[in-house]
Amino acid sequence: MLPGAGSAGPAGPGYPERVLLLNLDHVAVAVADLDAAIDRFGTLYRSAPLYREVVEDQGVEEAMIPLGGSHLQLLAPLGPDTPVGRFLERHGEGLHHVAYAVPDIEAALAHLAAEGAELIDREPRMGGGGRRVGFVHPRSGNGVLVELVEIT
Amino acid sequence: MLPGAGSAGPAGPGYPERVLLLNLDHVAVAVADLDAAIDRFGTLYRSAPLYREVVEDQGVEEAMIPLGGSHLQLLAPLGPDTPVGRFLERHGEGLHHVAYAVPDIEAALAHLAAEGAELIDREPRMGGGGRRVGFVHPRSGNGVLVELVEIT
Repeated sequence: MLPGAGSAGPAGPGYPERVLLLNLDHVAVAVADLDAAIDRFGTLYRSAPLYREVVEDQGVEEAMIPLGGSHLQLLAPLGPDTPVGRFLERHGEGLHHVAYAVPDIEAALAHLAAEGAELIDREPRMGGGGRRVGFVHPRSGNGVLVELVEIT
Repeated sequence: MLPGAGSAGPAGPGYPERVLLLNLDHVAVAVADLDAAIDRFGTLYRSAPLYREVVEDQGVEEAMIPLGGSHLQLLAPLGPDTPVGRFLERHGEGLHHVAYAVPDIEAALAHLAAEGAELIDREPRMGGGGRRVGFVHPRSGNGVLVELVEIT
């Protein structure tokens, strides 16, 4: 049984509360040139990144721009032979994925697997900001690549 | 001069504060079948729409799902010969646009035009929820269609 299963929380009886989505953590945009994208966003919207970070495991450098209760993440590939590099080659710049904050990444991934969702990560891995993440295939999300981010 | 221009706010001297982005209001996903998409999201994530609404002017029916401080918007076309219908024909289901909340839609559109952004709407129009909105072309947003939503 999943943690929290059987309790009657806001999602109703029997639903594991630790699987609930807490927030739209960020929406990610694939860009070819991170400096240029940050400059453009700053010129048009006067918002600047909280931080920039290289995430070697994902082959990206990312910049996280706060937008009220959520964030815009700009994602640039570290090279052409990376997931974001291949995305740019196929699609050009544009929306890449959305990330939902969850309280318990293992519980969330287990729940999704039990419901038949197609997981890219069956176990959590380390993402940006030292947070544990897991990706869900677009085939289980109406064409949208979904990242779950554990907020502790 | 734009409203607020010349004041020294959080964005620095000379920046019109009424243009600032207040929040990532929503991220929108184009779907072929709104009922099926709502059902799937409910099964996987146990989140349900706050409301559903037909926006005839945009040729869509939309469902707004709250996610913490932001929203996921599911967008289904009212017919094939609509912007979202053509999007589905070309791209299939997937991420369609992001929406930023602004305090003054006229000031925001005027600022973007002055900075050389390519606007789809030079004047605000009515969007979902009775809010005034304006769209910015993906060519001015690293491939991302941007909607500005006035929050009053």
